[in-house]
Amino acid sequence: MAGPPTVGMVGAGQLARMTAQAAISLDVRVRVLADAEESPAAASGAIVERRPVTAGDLAELAARCDVVTFDHEGVDLAAVEALEASGRTVRPSSGALHLAVDKAEQRRRLGAAGFPVPPFCVTDQPAAVRGFVEVHGPAVVAKAATGGYDGRGVWFTDGADEALEALRVCGRLVLEPRLALDRELAVLVARRPGGEVVAYPVVETLQRDGICTEVVAPAPVPASVAAEARDLACAIAEHIGSTGILAVELFVVEGALLVNELATRPHNSGHLTIEGTTTSQFENHLRAVLDWPLGAVDLRAPAVAMANLIAVSEADLHERVPTALALGPVHVHLYGKRPRPGRKVGHVTVLGERPAEVVDLARRAAAVIVGSSPTGSQEGP
Amino acid sequence: MAGPPTVGMVGAGQLARMTAQAAISLDVRVRVLADAEESPAAASGAIVERRPVTAGDLAELAARCDVVTFDHEGVDLAAVEALEASGRTVRPSSGALHLAVDKAEQRRRLGAAGFPVPPFCVTDQPAAVRGFVEVHGPAVVAKAATGGYDGRGVWFTDGADEALEALRVCGRLVLEPRLALDRELAVLVARRPGGEVVAYPVVETLQRDGICTEVVAPAPVPASVAAEARDLACAIAEHIGSTGILAVELFVVEGALLVNELATRPHNSGHLTIEGTTTSQFENHLRAVLDWPLGAVDLRAPAVAMANLIAVSEADLHERVPTALALGPVHVHLYGKRPRPGRKVGHVTVLGERPAEVVDLARRAAAVIVGSSPTGSQEGP
Repeated sequence: MAGPPTVGMVGAGQLARMTAQAAISLDVRVRVLADAEESPAAASGAIVERRPVTAGDLAELAARCDVVTFDHEGVDLAAVEALEASGRTVRPSSGALHLAVDKAEQRRRLGAAGFPVPPFCVTDQPAAVRGFVEVHGPAVVAKAATGGYDGRGVWFTDGADEALEALRVCGRLVLEPRLALDRELAVLVARRPGGEVVAYPVVETLQRDGICTEVVAPAPVPASVAAEARDLACAIAEHIGSTGILAVELFVVEGALLVNELATRPHNSGHLTIEGTTTSQFENHLRAVLDWPLGAVDLRAPAVAMANLIAVSEADLHERVPTALALGPVHVHLYGKRPRPGRKVGHVTVLGERPAEVVDLARRAAAVIVGSSPTGSQEGP
Repeated sequence: MAGPPTVGMVGAGQLARMTAQAAISLDVRVRVLADAEESPAAASGAIVERRPVTAGDLAELAARCDVVTFDHEGVDLAAVEALEASGRTVRPSSGALHLAVDKAEQRRRLGAAGFPVPPFCVTDQPAAVRGFVEVHGPAVVAKAATGGYDGRGVWFTDGADEALEALRVCGRLVLEPRLALDRELAVLVARRPGGEVVAYPVVETLQRDGICTEVVAPAPVPASVAAEARDLACAIAEHIGSTGILAVELFVVEGALLVNELATRPHNSGHLTIEGTTTSQFENHLRAVLDWPLGAVDLRAPAVAMANLIAVSEADLHERVPTALALGPVHVHLYGKRPRPGRKVGHVTVLGERPAEVVDLARRAAAVIVGSSPTGSQEGP
């Protein structure tokens, strides 16, 4: 081999941006297919290719890269399969991607393999929706079988009428009872094609309105639960044959783990690994898809917290960064995205001694940057 | 202010590359003036402007940036002064830069201000060279007053004839006796225009043939010496009014500190701060020249070592990276420079518990990547 390896990435959002940033150290080239108006990855040294992402574009990208990977799941699986059939290296594979894209298939496969999942029903029939509500009660979570993210495509319904409205919008739903959650966890796993696997420390994810607002590591759960969560995530990675980062989101219900959702790519729950663990999820994603040895994933501090920057207005955020930096040891990440209310435009990470302290500082820094109060409501005039 | 701030950097080498990489997180734009054939900064998201660096180019760069800074000292000081006179923000200032460029002036100023410096003589006269050798003995270090770096422009002479040869090549020399060094240290200081200053933990620098090969933090010196070194570096930063990173290289001779050299920019002795301290020298350089609050500089591990990748051939290094990564928790940084024997093309950093361990691993990883034995000689066939 002569010269730097090239990783192709479908999507040019913040995940591609942070992957490309990590790639600079290794002198790995990242070539991205940009399929949205903004390309946060462009400012991080990635080579940006044309949009939209047609099968032809994908094939052309693959021809210029050693391996093709993804920063989101919104891809044409048939095109990915065609790429594989033509002998190109795609990681994760279309098979693993399929599970990430299709929540219905994901639930079915995981359930069938004996992994613990919530009670669920996959349906496109109003009668089945009514039946599910009758059995499980009116508090139902209805998820679009495909296409949802960041709380979009998820309905917390109260009775059959709202669930039927979700069905009308989505066409096909995964229904599950609204469970009383002790908490939500996530485990990132990096896996190489040959099977080498590392599981990151288990994190707790905190949500507001269905959107992840903060992540804390290590998760405040007994060691036995943390070990079980990591084993579970590794077993799923093995079962689906994932390559690269696999994020496994988990519910804890009455002390027991249930698999909520999978993502076969770097994940919001792993942004704190940039400063918080020996090897970031972005570097390990690159190393895994290149089939290189994986890096250690130990926490670098007793407690690490990440808070998402969720815009509350269209105001520019740059001028508020210094104020946030003055609060303490805050690592600021802006994604170069235009702020719009509800849009995730960056995150901050804090390392420290105690979970309560790092969460508090991360939350305050995030509030300063987006211009909200630390509890999330917008500041007065 | 609307939109991201822009920092202009003169030079597009590895320091600009790592500065631009750090800038991605803060969504700060870095616009570099490339004055060499290669532009390592280009692959890290920096906007690369034309070469060479004329006064006009410099003025044009400044017009597009909030502040202008430097990744090397090889700049036309008159052009920088003209820029300042035109009202542009330049950090460090031409005054501080002058001291970094001109080792003779540096020694004189520091000596005159009462900072501890080695015995020295600045001269362009053969008679003075002979006189210095007569007084201090034949083992003399002769440094080009301007233009040297990485061991170039430095002669370890043995007698007047060799020193006179150095004079013939350089025109003007700084002479000093070859001191019996206990060790060499370095302290990085970040300083804002208003005077806020942070001093990084003191590191030991290990040299071979006048080139820094490894850096270890913390330096194995008594706490009192470390405190004295940091105080000294802060006092020098204050005295010369530096802004951004100032690197202060120190000799330890019979337990006492002497100032060897200054650099008014991010410095090789600070590359281990990327993973090894809370805020890297590159982020703090950006924050300092933007007049933003400075970041904490605590070590993230009990021991941190950096080993430079100094090429021993023209062979491509990329394919050896996985082998180095398999050795343990090694952070690899390749600069995207074409390897040539003796050329610094990257570095590796290791965090751990014990200095001897991290140095050993860093050294072995570096040897694997450049293809030499860990003691520096090239591998056999």
